[in-house]
Amino acid sequence: MMSTRTPLLSPESPAPALPQGIAQARLLLPPALTHWTDRLEPALRDICEYQLGLRDEHGRPTGTAHGKLVRPAFVLLCARAVGGDPVDAVSGAVAVELVHNASLIHDDIMDGDLERRHRRTVWARYGTPMAILAGDALFTLAFEAVSALERPESRTACHHLALTLRELMAGQSRDLGFERRGVPSITACLTMIEGKTGSLLGCACRLGTLVAATPPSWGDRFERFGLHLGVAFQLVDDLLGIWGDPRVTGKPVGADLQARKKSAPIVAALTAESPASRRLAELYATPGPFEADELALVAELVDQAGGRAWAREEARRRIETAWDCLVGIDVADDARMGLEELAALLIDREW
Amino acid sequence: MMSTRTPLLSPESPAPALPQGIAQARLLLPPALTHWTDRLEPALRDICEYQLGLRDEHGRPTGTAHGKLVRPAFVLLCARAVGGDPVDAVSGAVAVELVHNASLIHDDIMDGDLERRHRRTVWARYGTPMAILAGDALFTLAFEAVSALERPESRTACHHLALTLRELMAGQSRDLGFERRGVPSITACLTMIEGKTGSLLGCACRLGTLVAATPPSWGDRFERFGLHLGVAFQLVDDLLGIWGDPRVTGKPVGADLQARKKSAPIVAALTAESPASRRLAELYATPGPFEADELALVAELVDQAGGRAWAREEARRRIETAWDCLVGIDVADDARMGLEELAALLIDREW
Repeated sequence: MMSTRTPLLSPESPAPALPQGIAQARLLLPPALTHWTDRLEPALRDICEYQLGLRDEHGRPTGTAHGKLVRPAFVLLCARAVGGDPVDAVSGAVAVELVHNASLIHDDIMDGDLERRHRRTVWARYGTPMAILAGDALFTLAFEAVSALERPESRTACHHLALTLRELMAGQSRDLGFERRGVPSITACLTMIEGKTGSLLGCACRLGTLVAATPPSWGDRFERFGLHLGVAFQLVDDLLGIWGDPRVTGKPVGADLQARKKSAPIVAALTAESPASRRLAELYATPGPFEADELALVAELVDQAGGRAWAREEARRRIETAWDCLVGIDVADDARMGLEELAALLIDREW
Repeated sequence: MMSTRTPLLSPESPAPALPQGIAQARLLLPPALTHWTDRLEPALRDICEYQLGLRDEHGRPTGTAHGKLVRPAFVLLCARAVGGDPVDAVSGAVAVELVHNASLIHDDIMDGDLERRHRRTVWARYGTPMAILAGDALFTLAFEAVSALERPESRTACHHLALTLRELMAGQSRDLGFERRGVPSITACLTMIEGKTGSLLGCACRLGTLVAATPPSWGDRFERFGLHLGVAFQLVDDLLGIWGDPRVTGKPVGADLQARKKSAPIVAALTAESPASRRLAELYATPGPFEADELALVAELVDQAGGRAWAREEARRRIETAWDCLVGIDVADDARMGLEELAALLIDREW
């Protein structure tokens, strides 16, 4: 599964071993995803498989899925963590990956984004009607996957998947609201992130635990674990949206600043009530793209107003809280190592 | 529940008794729908409730749901038909109504339709991003509703709902394909209708049967019953799209002809290989709206080429096949009467 050509790495990095959770997800997920997408009406199937990276730009099967498969990796590792067999958790891993991609397809339409993962977004490639439908189809397949087996955990998985999607959509609704209105409070911003990113990673961890008999509170505790890690992940993503290397992020330099996004570090900076904060607000209110020197200044002001430090500290705090959620649970050593490795990757990443 | 002001009736009709299934659905559904929509993030909730008719154009609660509630009525009657209590089937009735409205919201975006039920469509009123999200939220709530109770039937309901949505989306994908390509075969057209309209009425009937212990085959048989009735319903709808009274349908005269739709009666006429069929194809190939006299001629040609008679006959045949699916099942008399009344309403309607 490993090679020096792995697209996860920045060009300068040596090739470290792929975290075990991600290696396992990359092995198990592509055939499992195809097992489900194959059931779709052919036109829809091709589009869904394009989004998942199972097909390339010319519609040819790639034999692999793209994206980081972080969410499925958490499902598999959490199954291991509670003493279950990760293979039994594959349908849950499939479900979270399908839901993630469904929401990406729909979000790209809402945001008018033209590129993702260095390829055209689904709506840009196949038109808005088919993109709406492809997103719907992936949401649906996720429920089909978790409800297929006749056993009580299937009902539980369906129900938590539905609750999670409700949180995810609440988060996206709040995010769209931020773009229409003034600067939100940092609390509102974190609530939005918990819904939009935290909830699905929380669901991933909960679904993993369903493969073994566990005390009733463990599902909730693993879900909180994932939720906080998800928030940390998003905060790092937001930092990369400002300071990330375009060769690695696949987005232009300072993409979030150019789009006047109200991501968490920017909201923290805008609400800091300092001279840097006020200067930032003035520049943010100007229309049109920033020139290169303006862009550098805006990023510098976010930093000076404390946005960068706040986001790093909040991410660190969330990771700590995440682990607090599992205190007293006897997690098998190899699973704990795998989760630690994955959690570290979420924040110490160039990708 | 009945009044001479009921919007279902054409202006000239006397006021007949509302079929019992619909009367019961109108009583039980509005509070049950609100029970679920109340859980949504406020901005999303208001939009979803607007779509469902629970709120008016100014966002004020109406105390009622609009639409015909035909699908929930079938859920409730089928529960009765197998000896169950319709009240136990309310979550299934809610689910099919939510799914129906979710797909209407998304279809209206795909088709660019501006009006539905004499009001602006959701995307026309709230913008495409929030409309996509509102549709997603209603799909999600449907799964939340059927998976809420901890019992084996909940898993079954979730699974069949997911399978149904897959069929529904396959139907919509095929329908979008028809608009891009040439004239489909009448078989392809019927397959599309089975997915787009039949599958959800089939699911409604199946979900109704889940409230009682029944022989294993009954779920399938009731689903086929609903599927065929759904196709009949759509064929009548297609006839109304050509010959329906605008005061009743809420659409302009000959709306489907103006939009050059390839609905089933039109496909039957276009593929009939007669002089009327060829003349119709020529007129259908001209761009721009038809003048009043052209419109009358086009409708006349659909009739002459046999499209109207074919659709009526196919609808009649589907109703017959639907009842064949239930042969040998001991349906309680009042439930059978209710189903017959509802089935009759589906085809003998001005609405």
